[in-house]
Amino acid sequence: MKTFKYPEVEQWSSILMRPTQSVSDIEDTVEEIFQEVKNKGNMAVQRYTELFDGVQAEEFEVSEETISAAANQISEELKTAINTAKSNIERFHKSQITDYKMVETSPGVNCWIRKKPIQKVGLYIPGGTAPLFSSILMLAVPAKLAGCEEIILCSPPGKDGTLAPEILYTAALCGVKKIFTVGGIQAIAALTFGTETIPSVYKIFGPGNQFVTVAKQIATKYGVAIDMPAGPSELMVVSDEMGRADFIASDLLSQAEHGTDSQVVLVTTSETLLSEVDKEIKKQMELLPRKEIAAKAIKNSKSILVANDNDALRIINEYGPEHLIVVSENESYYLDRIMNAGSVFVGSYTPESAGDYASGTNHTLPTNGYAKQYSGVNLDSFLKSVTFQKISKEGIRNIGPVVELMAEAEGLQAHKNAVSIRLNEINK
Amino acid sequence: MKTFKYPEVEQWSSILMRPTQSVSDIEDTVEEIFQEVKNKGNMAVQRYTELFDGVQAEEFEVSEETISAAANQISEELKTAINTAKSNIERFHKSQITDYKMVETSPGVNCWIRKKPIQKVGLYIPGGTAPLFSSILMLAVPAKLAGCEEIILCSPPGKDGTLAPEILYTAALCGVKKIFTVGGIQAIAALTFGTETIPSVYKIFGPGNQFVTVAKQIATKYGVAIDMPAGPSELMVVSDEMGRADFIASDLLSQAEHGTDSQVVLVTTSETLLSEVDKEIKKQMELLPRKEIAAKAIKNSKSILVANDNDALRIINEYGPEHLIVVSENESYYLDRIMNAGSVFVGSYTPESAGDYASGTNHTLPTNGYAKQYSGVNLDSFLKSVTFQKISKEGIRNIGPVVELMAEAEGLQAHKNAVSIRLNEINK
Repeated sequence: MKTFKYPEVEQWSSILMRPTQSVSDIEDTVEEIFQEVKNKGNMAVQRYTELFDGVQAEEFEVSEETISAAANQISEELKTAINTAKSNIERFHKSQITDYKMVETSPGVNCWIRKKPIQKVGLYIPGGTAPLFSSILMLAVPAKLAGCEEIILCSPPGKDGTLAPEILYTAALCGVKKIFTVGGIQAIAALTFGTETIPSVYKIFGPGNQFVTVAKQIATKYGVAIDMPAGPSELMVVSDEMGRADFIASDLLSQAEHGTDSQVVLVTTSETLLSEVDKEIKKQMELLPRKEIAAKAIKNSKSILVANDNDALRIINEYGPEHLIVVSENESYYLDRIMNAGSVFVGSYTPESAGDYASGTNHTLPTNGYAKQYSGVNLDSFLKSVTFQKISKEGIRNIGPVVELMAEAEGLQAHKNAVSIRLNEINK
Repeated sequence: MKTFKYPEVEQWSSILMRPTQSVSDIEDTVEEIFQEVKNKGNMAVQRYTELFDGVQAEEFEVSEETISAAANQISEELKTAINTAKSNIERFHKSQITDYKMVETSPGVNCWIRKKPIQKVGLYIPGGTAPLFSSILMLAVPAKLAGCEEIILCSPPGKDGTLAPEILYTAALCGVKKIFTVGGIQAIAALTFGTETIPSVYKIFGPGNQFVTVAKQIATKYGVAIDMPAGPSELMVVSDEMGRADFIASDLLSQAEHGTDSQVVLVTTSETLLSEVDKEIKKQMELLPRKEIAAKAIKNSKSILVANDNDALRIINEYGPEHLIVVSENESYYLDRIMNAGSVFVGSYTPESAGDYASGTNHTLPTNGYAKQYSGVNLDSFLKSVTFQKISKEGIRNIGPVVELMAEAEGLQAHKNAVSIRLNEINK
């Protein structure tokens, strides 16, 4: 790790700078594939699946038989684990149901909100070296709780052209019935425009590589919403003498194994902890199967020694980490003042990986500093708020003159008239 | 209005089709201005203000003296009206404060959410023929309630190079202190990158013409969030024998006067109402100062006669109107089943213009069918949810094995290790 001891405030932003990703060169490719899928539907999806995934696919939808057969290919222990994770995630997301009351803003003027599910949603689940079935729990559980009617799952085929049984089992467990073996840009394009077999959706969720990320961004140009923009995964750990070097090292490494571009930052007020963590990382890294990936990520990572908690806090809020672990004697100081973070893990026995899988919080979180303006995925991500109002004769008599004056001042006479015609009727 | 009597279901989507706007030809211009403002700051903003607004500006920030002088240029009646509207909007948006409780998802595993304000927000207020100060109430009131620290307002100069006193008065009333006389693409670019005097922000809100709309879309490529994509304003009225033709005509016209591209749709089960509304529109339109604009919008508008409430409901949900007025004997049938609408106005004495100004609901709403996946602006638009978790030794003993199993199945050994190292310590 690159070590910075008591850096000047002016240096912070350059120390905390994330590597910029150039997307503009991908954009043209994405636009081209979008147009192809829009115009040629399945034929285009087929062609790109062959080109990018090396798989010849005749149809993309996974059959009911294949889905139900998946349960037999997974150990009972893993099934139980997935079920436990699912019920924790369900419990936490259920607690996010909000019940808005009717508000009488003026006598006779009643306003209220009702949240309605987004009817059609698409879930993108990355493939790659390992089947990331945990992301299905994080997206399908809140989608179901919200009441989304149509949930479409897309995931790229493995080398043999199929999806891992863990993916199929978890999807089925969450009640997802429409599963397509399609990935990458072509999957996002299909969810945007629809094809002969893949339905179009109103909002697309889920993580992905840089191609998927740019494709989701382009999809918004065609009227589809997305969960959030994405970037490489990140972890910041803030600690003091209270932190255990071995625990912290294991957390930093858990983030580092995600990819060579993972961002890992340690901020501490303890010089001892700083050097201990460094030693522990070296020790623990040796034993990792994904050692090479982790080593590269760690090489680009930073550990920063700061003078006090206030400096650490300012660094947190300037960086806006996706994941933040806080192990500090002044725990409540941080909890009260953290403004920008995706998800916060508090105390020595709260590893980030608990939240990645099973504690109940969502692991689809804003990266790349987007914690400054975006929430992680939550129940509301699958809902939209519709406002309602009902005004009685008394109500329009109360606020009508206000509307008339303001509409006139804005030069909108017909807006005024819509009130005047009603007031005239009442005053007849 | 174009009239459709009992159209076949297959025809609905073509009847309800909105005129498509071509944005791709604007995109290049927007990108060019963005690069100029990014590289040259105020100088570029100055140049485009001269080019597009015909105004030579030396500085953009409105002085404190100008702001406080504005109050003297407005009638007391209008000030009282603005104050009343503000307190209704405040009351309704305050009711949207959610208080999440801590959830123990498994014994020893505590998860909770805290909503934090987006620290820096930009509010865009269009200029044009009339000062749309009501939009300031709709954006600045929830921004203040949310606790946003920096609220930047941009609005294009009038021909004399200044902002209308109504704009300045309303902004000051809402506690907005940084006001810039800058509009159009250059304003959005300045809020995205910042200039020597105009601060960059994390999220941009507010309506605007097609240039502003495309600029906001492009801004998202540079890491800024926006409230929602936008399109021309819309109103759908659904009614039956209960509807009063004169009231409904006044509502349709209030929407039609917004612009020639405004979308106005009447859906009714009553053939009598359909023809009465048509007559009333012709009568009332004659007296409007913005008659020509309204006439053009009405010409492109549609009235649809349907067989029953169920068909009307399906049309609502397929169209997803920004504004929806429901005047029906079967009111509750609709209220329970409306899925896609920005804001719903219920009953004969609830004109849309009440919600545009003073009832308390927000008038920044999803157009162009975006009600299918976006909420209108509300308190949460200015907040983001941060999740927290704290796990005790008992907690990690409970869910640790689940995490270990799932991490291993996803091929992420370091994720597993972060749990194992803690379980080993506990079980020592």
